[in-house]
Amino acid sequence: MVSRTARRLVADVPAIAAAHFEAESDPYHPGDNPKGYVNLGTAENRLVWDLLAPRLAEAGPPREPDCQYAPLHGAPELRAATAALLSRRWNTAIDPADLVVVSGATAALDILATVLCDPGEAVVTPAPYYAAFETDLTGRSGARLLPAPMDEATGYALSPAVLDRVLGSARRDGVTVRALALTSPSNPVGHVYSPGVLRDVLRVAEEHDVDVIADEIYAHSVFGSAAFTSMLDPAVAGRHASRVHGVWGFAKDFGLPGLKAGVLYTRDPDVRATARALAYFAPVSTQTQATLTRLIGDTAWVRDFLAESRRRLGRSYAATASLLARHGIPHVEASGGFSVWIDLRGRLSARTTEGEHALWQEIFKAARVNILPGTVFGCPRPGWFRLCHATDAGTVAAGVTRLAGVLGETR
Amino acid sequence: MVSRTARRLVADVPAIAAAHFEAESDPYHPGDNPKGYVNLGTAENRLVWDLLAPRLAEAGPPREPDCQYAPLHGAPELRAATAALLSRRWNTAIDPADLVVVSGATAALDILATVLCDPGEAVVTPAPYYAAFETDLTGRSGARLLPAPMDEATGYALSPAVLDRVLGSARRDGVTVRALALTSPSNPVGHVYSPGVLRDVLRVAEEHDVDVIADEIYAHSVFGSAAFTSMLDPAVAGRHASRVHGVWGFAKDFGLPGLKAGVLYTRDPDVRATARALAYFAPVSTQTQATLTRLIGDTAWVRDFLAESRRRLGRSYAATASLLARHGIPHVEASGGFSVWIDLRGRLSARTTEGEHALWQEIFKAARVNILPGTVFGCPRPGWFRLCHATDAGTVAAGVTRLAGVLGETR
Repeated sequence: MVSRTARRLVADVPAIAAAHFEAESDPYHPGDNPKGYVNLGTAENRLVWDLLAPRLAEAGPPREPDCQYAPLHGAPELRAATAALLSRRWNTAIDPADLVVVSGATAALDILATVLCDPGEAVVTPAPYYAAFETDLTGRSGARLLPAPMDEATGYALSPAVLDRVLGSARRDGVTVRALALTSPSNPVGHVYSPGVLRDVLRVAEEHDVDVIADEIYAHSVFGSAAFTSMLDPAVAGRHASRVHGVWGFAKDFGLPGLKAGVLYTRDPDVRATARALAYFAPVSTQTQATLTRLIGDTAWVRDFLAESRRRLGRSYAATASLLARHGIPHVEASGGFSVWIDLRGRLSARTTEGEHALWQEIFKAARVNILPGTVFGCPRPGWFRLCHATDAGTVAAGVTRLAGVLGETR
Repeated sequence: MVSRTARRLVADVPAIAAAHFEAESDPYHPGDNPKGYVNLGTAENRLVWDLLAPRLAEAGPPREPDCQYAPLHGAPELRAATAALLSRRWNTAIDPADLVVVSGATAALDILATVLCDPGEAVVTPAPYYAAFETDLTGRSGARLLPAPMDEATGYALSPAVLDRVLGSARRDGVTVRALALTSPSNPVGHVYSPGVLRDVLRVAEEHDVDVIADEIYAHSVFGSAAFTSMLDPAVAGRHASRVHGVWGFAKDFGLPGLKAGVLYTRDPDVRATARALAYFAPVSTQTQATLTRLIGDTAWVRDFLAESRRRLGRSYAATASLLARHGIPHVEASGGFSVWIDLRGRLSARTTEGEHALWQEIFKAARVNILPGTVFGCPRPGWFRLCHATDAGTVAAGVTRLAGVLGETR
């Protein structure tokens, strides 16, 4: 017999992962496997491997210290290099001592939820939200996720007023909320938030005395006209930066999701001390820490790599948006991230969760295209789907064409 | 304000880690830093890097699939290669589907405790025990560790009768015990257990209906006359193998502790399912998984490497034992692992925990030698210390000489 914690967790394996591995077990290839799955469900950046491969090769084989124990909160060299990178992007001086290296953003989110919440306490997040928030923030911590439903009519734009309302009603219901969590740039919608909106979000957090978990894993992956601003930027955080805990990793901006390397950043000494203790359970291979240190050690290379990655993401998004338009599939305009939030409301047999599920299954089974339904992201209304475009243009085109075919039949 | 879980954890940073990093920050070198710390506190195998380096270099730089998402319970290639390795050592067919790859033995122990125990439930372990059991088995799971004190007069030999007594008295006290955990070969003492003793331990576990967590991370690191037998060997486990959950990793037998790669093995389908769900929070870098797959893929190389490692460990142990004898420092005879369990009872100012602590501090501060006191291992009686010898012979000799110097002064 297994424990209650274990039973809760096994009931909760992320749908996002299951669909990914089923699709990847029989992947589309124009020549070799034209009937295979087109995987547009996973937010991977497959546009930059040609840039990474030579740099990773130059790093050379692991040396002896690369294979020995490192401090539990990350090798000093990697923390220093990551602090330099994030200081530029977050527009504020990041002390390497305030960074905790952990096995990916998942671990960083789990640790922050565990540090901030006792079991039963809540984290509020704007919905739709990053699908794995559910597992990452609640699975081990025992915290609850409390979605704040954004307005469909605005394309799910981030509304500080809705956050304020949800926090207020939680308090009236006797729920102890400890944190607000949000992805910025937003996943799944792809919005890049203005300093003004972020300031308002932080003001709401202050008024309700909750911390902010700012998951900025797509910080370098913006391509629209709006510039990225970190929640930690002094223009946003002001004197409240110790309330904001940042999360970043190498999975998205550097296209290295398998390496499972992320950081948690905090200026709160208690949060830092406990996060370091929890990092003991979620370490990153020292081999991989050494590889990443060498990868980002050359500032000029990093600048050029990130600029080229943004150009390619922008081109990929533009091509996808134009394909969708050609097939009459509406979407919310994105400025960052790897995905497009598409509107298939008009294609549902019924405007219900069941109707959405039926369409999802049809797309997955008949068209063999993996895109994820809004339910997975806690979307307040049925009919929205996330389509990831940061992969080979031919694959995206094949997927959108197949998708349009199925939608045509279901109309 | 941080959560209760977080406060509990931060009060509990392993002493073993703190001493390690202090000693490593100013390490002894015969020429460059003759007054530096001699670190004989950390169970690292530093005798085999010359064998590993060329193989690791041959593995080459990471390829694209080495950097992408892998199944959450480990890449199939690494599970297959590890299953082949462990099938030979454990003398039973290991199905790769029953292996869960996680970020080191720490994660495997944490996951097993979380799967088997609800908060407040207990795991019994023979004492002295592996120092990090305290954090690994209880830190995140909320389980309690219940030490079963072995007898000083036998050199802390494993006694199934003592385990039986502790399990019985726990039940009478209303404590729910879910598992027995033991290291085999034993750490810190270095005993290699006979099939008969292991069968008796398993019989005790059956009688009390508890599972067994068999931490066999030193399975290949035996050098004495006694052969290693796994708790999972059919000659031990018989038809009760589904009650035994194995833990193994690359840190000790392959001298790669920084890579934080371990496996959890179970034939219990519920434990397996929940362990897979928990592995999501403790993944291993796919780069490192690929490196390890290539490292152990060549069976002939692995056989020769492990044989040579055992020879070197045996020589290192013999040299250390003879040095200790020359200085009149008694120890328990070891047949496996990286350490010697030395008896400094006669050198305590008082036969108390405080006396032991004072001697430890004197050894660390005056002699600048890092060895760990028995308290850290939950040793039932004061005066025992663990000295790790699997490093350069000159360093061990310098450490033992310094240690003897301090002991001479305190006599």
